[in-house]
Amino acid sequence: MSWKLLNSRTVIDDEWITVRSNDYLTRDGRSLNGYYLIERGDFVVIVAECRGKLVLVREHRVGTGRQYLGFPAGYIEAGEAPVAAAMREFQEETGFQALSGKLLAELDPQPAYLKSRAFVVHVQASDRPIDRSTDDEIDEVLLLDWETAIDKARKGEINEMQAVAALYLVRDLLGKG
Amino acid sequence: MSWKLLNSRTVIDDEWITVRSNDYLTRDGRSLNGYYLIERGDFVVIVAECRGKLVLVREHRVGTGRQYLGFPAGYIEAGEAPVAAAMREFQEETGFQALSGKLLAELDPQPAYLKSRAFVVHVQASDRPIDRSTDDEIDEVLLLDWETAIDKARKGEINEMQAVAALYLVRDLLGKG
Repeated sequence: MSWKLLNSRTVIDDEWITVRSNDYLTRDGRSLNGYYLIERGDFVVIVAECRGKLVLVREHRVGTGRQYLGFPAGYIEAGEAPVAAAMREFQEETGFQALSGKLLAELDPQPAYLKSRAFVVHVQASDRPIDRSTDDEIDEVLLLDWETAIDKARKGEINEMQAVAALYLVRDLLGKG
Repeated sequence: MSWKLLNSRTVIDDEWITVRSNDYLTRDGRSLNGYYLIERGDFVVIVAECRGKLVLVREHRVGTGRQYLGFPAGYIEAGEAPVAAAMREFQEETGFQALSGKLLAELDPQPAYLKSRAFVVHVQASDRPIDRSTDDEIDEVLLLDWETAIDKARKGEINEMQAVAALYLVRDLLGKG
């Protein structure tokens, strides 16, 4: 059973984000006014393998002001399928070619207030980069074997939530555990 | 290397959320105006064991309009330590007593635009509930063994990102894999 939506007002609405201020009647009969919901586009998290190694990227993130070691990721464009988005974004961010892709999972981050679904795609990458001019936002592209990546998650060196979720889940689904 | 912040304007600022509209100079020299950053409080994700079984909750989430099977979670109050917050929230949401707690990991969800850190806490729960009046937002409290929970993550029945990340990571850190 969910809350009853009484009123909704759009506060922000641009190409990247929509923020609504909603008034609800909660299930125990309380009025909850001005609850902010955030919508962003759906996105892909790309767990790619190159010669059996994982392709990770190091990237600064402005929301927290920290640098993260994680998986390539990006928003799905209008009309684009998740696997196509993953293959496109992977090549843009890493310079490797995406030879094939398979959708393995769908995860929802922060669903208490956020609508923006993550599609986890497994990509088979070319043996070598085909393009050296990777996305300007990427600091470094690294190849790590699975156990090294898991060890970095254990130690907190991989601590972006989507990277930790995708790393373990894909490892389990591929039977690499 | 990060973007250079040129200007920041607070658009929303209440007890639960702050939204800023920031203007940046990106590292390749582009002007990026009106980039929205969201701040919410830090929170705990509670992986609790009761007689060797995991304590999960079923809960409707208004951001996506879906119901999730996941771990108890909640915001850390001002001045509260993560473990204390986890023990308090766990008891509020499940009715079980938290006998002890240990901080195992810190994860950042959506750091490209969100500042709100997840502290993953492992809790040892009482054998039986001590209070039947659990949080009104919780639809059901379930005890699942580790393998059943992992199987549900594999099948997409546990698909809240924080639950998937915490389940696998804590299992690995506790050596239950």
